This record gives sequence, C-alpha cells and structure tokens, in this order.
Amino acid sequence: MEEDRRASGRSGTVSDTAPLHILCSEREAPLLAPLLPTLERAIKLCHPGDEIAAHIEAAFISRDVTGRSTKFEIMPDTERFYTALRAAPNLQWLHVHSAGIDRDFYQQQQQRGVRVTASHGASDAVVAQSALTGLLALARKLPQILQAQQQHSWEPLLGEGKTPRDLQGQHAVVVGWGGIGQRIGQLLQVLGLEVSVARHSGEPAGPDLRTVRYDQLHEVLPTASWLILACPLTDATRGLISADLLTLLPAHACVINVARGHVIDEPALVHALQDGRLGGAFLDVFYHEPLPADSPIWGLKNVIASPHSAGFSDGNAARVRQIFANKLQLWAQGSL
Amino acid sequence: MEEDRRASGRSGTVSDTAPLHILCSEREAPLLAPLLPTLERAIKLCHPGDEIAAHIEAAFISRDVTGRSTKFEIMPDTERFYTALRAAPNLQWLHVHSAGIDRDFYQQQQQRGVRVTASHGASDAVVAQSALTGLLALARKLPQILQAQQQHSWEPLLGEGKTPRDLQGQHAVVVGWGGIGQRIGQLLQVLGLEVSVARHSGEPAGPDLRTVRYDQLHEVLPTASWLILACPLTDATRGLISADLLTLLPAHACVINVARGHVIDEPALVHALQDGRLGGAFLDVFYHEPLPADSPIWGLKNVIASPHSAGFSDGNAARVRQIFANKLQLWAQGSL
Repeated sequence: MEEDRRASGRSGTVSDTAPLHILCSEREAPLLAPLLPTLERAIKLCHPGDEIAAHIEAAFISRDVTGRSTKFEIMPDTERFYTALRAAPNLQWLHVHSAGIDRDFYQQQQQRGVRVTASHGASDAVVAQSALTGLLALARKLPQILQAQQQHSWEPLLGEGKTPRDLQGQHAVVVGWGGIGQRIGQLLQVLGLEVSVARHSGEPAGPDLRTVRYDQLHEVLPTASWLILACPLTDATRGLISADLLTLLPAHACVINVARGHVIDEPALVHALQDGRLGGAFLDVFYHEPLPADSPIWGLKNVIASPHSAGFSDGNAARVRQIFANKLQLWAQGSL
Repeated sequence: MEEDRRASGRSGTVSDTAPLHILCSEREAPLLAPLLPTLERAIKLCHPGDEIAAHIEAAFISRDVTGRSTKFEIMPDTERFYTALRAAPNLQWLHVHSAGIDRDFYQQQQQRGVRVTASHGASDAVVAQSALTGLLALARKLPQILQAQQQHSWEPLLGEGKTPRDLQGQHAVVVGWGGIGQRIGQLLQVLGLEVSVARHSGEPAGPDLRTVRYDQLHEVLPTASWLILACPLTDATRGLISADLLTLLPAHACVINVARGHVIDEPALVHALQDGRLGGAFLDVFYHEPLPADSPIWGLKNVIASPHSAGFSDGNAARVRQIFANKLQLWAQGSL
C-alpha cells in the first residue's frame, strides 16, 4: 500500500482522491494558500500536531521553521517539525528554504527515499551582496574605523599598513560558480578586479575569467588578494581549503566565506590570522554554529564574524514561497 | 617685472632663461622628477626652506604635504609649506592632490590671482567604493554584527527591524554628478537599485536616471532609501540638505556623505538619527574635522563615522603625480 502511494506520487498519475496533505508552518499557510496551483487532488495544508502523519506526502520547510536553529543545534520548534516529518511514512518530497541541503536532517530524509529540493536563487543576490560587503569592509578598513569610533578617536587611514590598497587590478579567486559565485564575480569585475574561478568541473566560466578545477587552486592562490568561498558543501569541497593551500596566499590576502564552515580548515585559518600570515576575513559560517562564545574567532582583529546571516533579507520568504508553489505544480505532474 | 613674468607664464612664451622653480615636498621630488616634461626652460624642484621665494612660479601640494591637517586644523609641516607659498610673490599656479579646492588656503591663493587646479579623477573610483562600502555596511547591518561580535554573541539578523531589506528595487538619490557621483550611480544600478540624480544643471543624466535640479530635491526624497552626497562644496551646495529636506526622507532611509560636511545641516541630521527619524548614516565629512571628541556623532548607533578617508588609497599618489606632470606641460604651453 505504501509503495502504491509513493509510486502514484512519483509518476504524477494522481489516482488517490484523498486531499494532498502538505506540512508547513502555521505562519506560512495563509501566505502560501493563494499561490497554490490547481491540481487534480485537493490540497490540505497541515501542521505539526494535526495527527495526520500517514497523510503527509509533501512538506515545506520555510525560514520560520528553522528559526534560530543551526545545522548543529536544533531548537524545540524546529525539532517538533522534524519529528512530524520523521513520523510521516508516506512523505515523498521535502522542499527547504535554503540553498544548501547539507543539514543532517535533510540528508537523513534523502537516505530514506524522500526527495529534498532547495530554494536555489531565492537569496543568491543577497548572499553575493553580503560577500561584497565583507570584501569592501575589509578593503576600506571598516573594522579599524569602527574601533576608532568607539574611542571617539579621529584616525585617518594614513601610514604604512593603514592606507587601503587600490582595489582595481587586485586578483580575486571565487570558489564555486553557482548563482552566488557568478554574481560575486560579476560585481568584482565591475569594480575592476581580476577574477579567477575555481569550480568542480573546471569548465571555462567565461572569456575574462581564468578557470581552474578545485585540484588546481594552488596555481591561482599565490597572486590572490581575495579568496572567496561560495560553493556547496559536498564530498568535493569538504576541507578543500587546507592548511597547505592557505600558506600559498600572500600575507595581505583576505578570506571571504559565505559557503560552509567545513569548506576551509578553520584552525589553520585562525592560526594564519593570528600570526599575521593573512590580512583578514569575513566569515559567515563556521565549524560549529552558533560560534561558541570561547572561540578565538570572535576576538580576531581584521575579522568580521557574521552569524550565518549573509542570505537573510526581507524579500526571501516571498521568493522561497513562489519557488515552492512552482515546484509543487511540477511535482504533481511527476516532472520535478 | 612681476607682471611680465606672470604674463610670460600665462601665455607660455617662456622668454625667461632662469629655471622654472616648482615648490614640492622633499618626498615627492625624486618620484616626480622622472615624469617631468621637457620644457624650453629647465625645471628646478625646490622645497620650503630653500630661500627661493621670489623664484617660485608653480607648486605641487601632494598628499604628504597636507598630511594629518584638515580644512580646519593645520599641522606645522603643512603650515610651513603654506607659508613658503604665501611668501612667493610670483606664484602663478598651484596644483593640489584633492578633488576639492574648498580649503581656505586655496581660496586665498585664488583670490590673489593664483591659478589653483585639483586632481579630478585621481580618487573618484576610490571614493565611490567607499560610498558603496558605507551603503552596503548599513544595508547588511555590519555595525550591529560587529557590536555583537565584541560581546562574543551570536545574534542572527532575524526579527522585526533586524532582518535586512532587499536592496534590489530600493531608490537611491545621488546628489552631484561628477566623476564620483557617476561611479556611485553605476555601481548602484548594477546592484539593482533605482537611481535618481540631483545636479546643479538638472540636465538629464541618462535614460534610466530621473534627474532633478538641486531645488527639486523635495520631489525625489520621499521615496528615497538612500541619500548620497557626492557634490563639491559651493555656494549652491552649502547647506543644501536642510532640516526641512531631511524630514521628507522615510524613517528607514540612510544618508551617505562623501562630499563635505557643510553640504548637510549636521545638527538636524544628528537629531533625526537620535530620534530614529532616519535609519543610519555613513559620514566621512563633518562640520569640523577632526570630529571633536565630544561630538554626539561618535556614539550614534547605526552611524559609521569615517575620518575623512574615503578617498585614501595607495595608488592615489602616483595618479596625482601623473596628473600634475600632464598639467605642467599644458601650463607651460599656456593651455591649462
């Protein structure tokens, strides 16, 4: 019986006349309802606690469901949602608000045969803007300016090591060439930087872009003023930026990480920043999130530690909702 | 005799066989020498203290001459240079490193008939990047992120008033459409903002740019999320952004000032920021510089107080030097 339902859902030949139950948050339901496509079956939006475990075939994990949970620490409301999904034997499809699906829960759902889809594109422009913000803030010495401001101290950016460097002509290496990486590359080219791309395939990214495979990063890092991580966390990228690769960067170089903490060797990065073997960093992601209060990263000069918020923007929820509604149509047709 | 020398300098018919004495800093002389054009007269670079007041016909005020002096507070080394110029009865031309020539000393030199030229373009791209840095830092809540970082506190940008707003589609008003304003406008358009231009002439700035005269600013401010000041300080712009105009901005709007402090009513701006009638500000210029230690601006939340360093970059000196060398050729030909 269960197999039958799954098969019918997958093929899109909706023979079941029972309503399609979709688990979503109570906050999302009234916003989602007007966007839902007209399917052969009725759609019923349900919520954890509705005691309808066996009916749930699809689920929408919006931003408010994950709330302040991180990949590593799950808050009670999020856990309640996860529990409802674990208890749903007929769950076939799970859509999540984020661009990455590397959280354990999503991986577990995939392993039991649930299709998990992400909201690619919903926040790409926002994350790219955050990466650019971090780069410009470091380039223009904003941490130093704000530190002086706290002291009510007028400290012009004059003198050795204090004057910013011309951005134009600097070399940036962008790791990952999805929607985020491409937008970052475009913005940096507008600012006059020379951009190299490191991507899994090594396929040329464009005429003005030197492109290398991940295993060729050592060729482009020695001249890089900026190493910008914008790749998904996969077997190919976990630990990609090793301690050895970090030593290839010039001492003035800065690291921007809007990917995932485990893409880079975090202890090696911290040591390089502490020892002045790197110029600075803008980090939105970490080995553990929340970043522990005793992490040395909080106190590093020239480091901006951002609380995994690079993709947050007030327009995301509507974009993610529309992506889910569009995918629902495809899923019901069996063409997702 | 003096009139003869001036006339010969202006017309470019260099009849005088004495070397052309140019006052510059000791640091600049060896860097400038290789760039000097070949003129009919020999060129002699001289410095304050050389006791050659009567010979000086031209002067080059490089960045190291002004040093930590501001428009309002002159340091001894700068004063020494100014004094040498005041004592030069035959000074005809003074070139300065900055884009603006609103400092009192330059105004006084103009009033006694000295031609004063600025280094337009040398730092335009840098100032535009600084303005963009300020805008992005405010948009992406960097001051709040850095405050939380100091407390070792993980505070995701979630919740009412904390989540950043989509930048795309926001309306920015750029005041002044010289090299800096134009670059700012271009960068903001790449980021998807809608840009209006306010300029003295009101001449249309481009097809995708609503353009108004300064006296029409009230028409564009009510929908502006960003008011960006990038104009010179002139009779037309002094006090341009009045208390009344500030009240027209929405409460979430932010002010970016990379122009001059006196373009905006500073006390009115401070009150609006204190009362939450404005969202924030990135200020690089002030009524008085250095900003006094007891200024309330230092302590304002959502305000980044930058020490008039928006144009500082390590490549500026070479660009300014080349501009001076090029102008020297023109000046000697009488075609500056």
